[in-house]
This record gives sequence, C-alpha cells and structure tokens, in this order.
Amino acid sequence: MKTVIIHSGGLDSTVLLYHLLDLGHAVSAFSIHYGQRHARELDFAQLTCERLGVAHELADLRDLARVLSGSSLTNSEIAVAEGHYTEATMKSTVVPNRNMILLAVAAGHALSRKADAVAYAAHAGDHAIYPDCRPAFAVQLAQALALADWQPLELLRPFIEMDKTAIVRRGVELAVPFAETWSCYKGGEHHCGRCGTCIERREAFYLAGITDPTVYAEDAPETQQLIASQWRL
Amino acid sequence: MKTVIIHSGGLDSTVLLYHLLDLGHAVSAFSIHYGQRHARELDFAQLTCERLGVAHELADLRDLARVLSGSSLTNSEIAVAEGHYTEATMKSTVVPNRNMILLAVAAGHALSRKADAVAYAAHAGDHAIYPDCRPAFAVQLAQALALADWQPLELLRPFIEMDKTAIVRRGVELAVPFAETWSCYKGGEHHCGRCGTCIERREAFYLAGITDPTVYAEDAPETQQLIASQWRL
Repeated sequence: MKTVIIHSGGLDSTVLLYHLLDLGHAVSAFSIHYGQRHARELDFAQLTCERLGVAHELADLRDLARVLSGSSLTNSEIAVAEGHYTEATMKSTVVPNRNMILLAVAAGHALSRKADAVAYAAHAGDHAIYPDCRPAFAVQLAQALALADWQPLELLRPFIEMDKTAIVRRGVELAVPFAETWSCYKGGEHHCGRCGTCIERREAFYLAGITDPTVYAEDAPETQQLIASQWRL
Repeated sequence: MKTVIIHSGGLDSTVLLYHLLDLGHAVSAFSIHYGQRHARELDFAQLTCERLGVAHELADLRDLARVLSGSSLTNSEIAVAEGHYTEATMKSTVVPNRNMILLAVAAGHALSRKADAVAYAAHAGDHAIYPDCRPAFAVQLAQALALADWQPLELLRPFIEMDKTAIVRRGVELAVPFAETWSCYKGGEHHCGRCGTCIERREAFYLAGITDPTVYAEDAPETQQLIASQWRL
C-alpha cells in the first residue's frame, strides 16, 4: 500500500511513520510549513526521513499564518501560554481548520503521486480541545476524500483511539529515537518544558513508565515534580 | 449573514459575489494564488472588489503548484489543450483535490473572521469532469466543515444546480460587467478564445442569447461560428 503520511517532526507523527513502515506500507512523508511560530519540528521531520531513507516533501505555505491569524501557533504577537493545557490556553493554540487544510493539501499531493492512502496521527488526547481531531470529523472528511477524485483515496488514522501515552509505548516497541522529535511550541535550542505541549509530552513518558530522553530547559526538574505529584493524586 | 466567498476573478465567482451582495450578505472575498499558470484572473478579482467596496484577501500559496504537480493549470511544462473540452483535455486541467484545498483554507480564514458561511461557485456544468464539483462531494465536505470547529460554519453553493448559461443570465440581471472577469487558462493580453474554458464561456453567452463583451484574440470569429454550428444541430 502506497501511503503519504502527514509528518510534522513531532512525537506522534514520527511514531506513525515507524508504525506504517513496520506494517509494510510504501511510505512517503509530507510536511507543511503553514507559518507556525518556528520550524524546529520540520528540521526533525527531515532528519527522521533521511535516517529512514523515506522520501520527504515540504510545502512552503507560510502565508497561511497570515490569513488564518488569531492563533498563538502562527501569530508571533500572541504569547505561548505556559503551564498545563487548560481549555482557554489550548484554544489559543487552535489554528482554524488546520487539520482539514493539512489533510486536503496532503491528499492532493497523494493523488498526484497515485498513492492509495493519506495518514495522520490524530489521537484521542486531542479530541477535547481540537474539534478537528474528533473521530466524527475524520469520518466525514474520509467520505469527502473518497469523492474528491475519480481515484479513491483512503484516510488512515491508526492512533485515533490511542492517547499519547499509548503512542509512546508503541514508539518504544519500534525503537523510535524520541530525542529526535520536536514538540515544544517555542523554538528554542531545547524543549522549554513548560508549555502545554511540553507538559503533555513529559506526562506521556511519565505515564508510560519510560525515561524521557528529551533535553528540557533549566526548569525541568520542578515541572517534572509537578507532573509526578499531579498523577500520584 | 457574514459570508466569505472564494473569488477567483472568473465569471462564475464574480456573478456569485454580486448575487450574495444582492441577497444582503455581508460579503468578504478570498482568493488563493495556488501557483496557477498565470494570475490574470486574480487581478480581475481585485478590480471587482475595489469596484464594489468589498474586502479582499489574497493568500499566496504558490508552492501548492509544485506539490500538486501533474495538472496543466499549474504546471507550465504541460501545454494547455485547445478546442472544446473533451474528457481527456479536461482531465489534464484537474488540480488534484483543488476544491477541498480552496474550501479548507477559505473556511479557516472564515473561522478566523467569525463568519457564518463560506460560499463557492461550483456549478452543474463542471460535474462531469471535476469530481470535486459533484453535489455529493459538497454534501460530505459541508458535514466535515460543520464539525471542523466549535463554531458552526455553513457551506453555500447557490449555483450547484445551474449551468454556466444560467449563471450568465443571473449576471445580466445583476448588471455584472462581464468584460472585467477572466476565464482563459492562458494568460495573454486578451482571452485566447480557443482553450476549453474560453469556448465554454463563449458558449454560455451564445446560449443565453447575450452579446459576449469579451475581447478574444484574432481567431474569435472562426470559433464563434464553430460554437454556433454545433448548437444549431
């Protein structure tokens, strides 16, 4: 099966890449620079593909940030919230209709390559905050994709019922080098350890019982303790 | 109703803009440079919006052409076919998944502006060739759009049951200055008069019984006769 994967360079989509290769798919990776605050994750996407010998295409669609402005992921004037995701802080990271845009472009690329499927790493942990991570959205979009061309195209989302902890466990089975993935919303030398996605990442390793190989900025131990205390309750 | 319209600068979407204004929508226009062979139509989109005092946003996503390559609309190495659309020549102008991409980006823009709806000018004449102009596709995509965000967004396609001739007639009612719209796939000073979309345009005026105000290149009378003879059969 010829599959194009939407590959951000983050933890989830990197595990997905290894997962599909493990299942025997002929995988190619597709990344989109949609004007996110920094492109650190895209460097890791490229690194992973080089290591695995997987073809990697990067679409430069940076002007999307401007026309979708309002989100802290793309609008550098809005500060990235620190601390654990709350409904309010998560909503400030929502890029309107991001998943449909990424999937639509990746599907067009997949169709031009005569691929059978397009895959993405939406997972259960995202449902509450990102409306376009909900299974019901993906079901509708899959039906639209099946009609978008004369050539049928399948939408794969194998992690849709898994949380991030389960994805970390799957990554361990596949020997994914987690240190070579990027989650942090900020674009520093190291993961900040404090933004919502850093805390979610650390939590997933903690709950999976796996040593987190990520290098975090100086405040790491304090936050680690916070996560530990929260989950021991 | 606050509506974002996908406005290419072509005949159909220009009539749609007038049509929605006539219905009392608070309209803003959204165009996408997706790397089409030329941007003549986008100049006309801007001109129309200036004339009507409608806000106009242009997204520069030209790298799409490269990652969706394979179509003569975006790939300058493939020649534009002349003569009436046939299945083969029309298919060479299909940009894979174009409508879903345009709608997804326009919907994201509409959500960021807190609009109620996104509108596009898909019409019945396109169904046979462009799979993503079929009503069934739009129905599925509308359902996906309703789930893509917490804020509901409606998908409007008022011309879906009309052919281009009916759109021309509606344009006449609304006094649309047709000469200030662009259809031709080539980007010359004037419409070529010979490519599939030029012939379709001329045919629509002919069948509507309206004098075509478009300036065509030198071969116009000959093709006009061809259209006339075909439809008199």
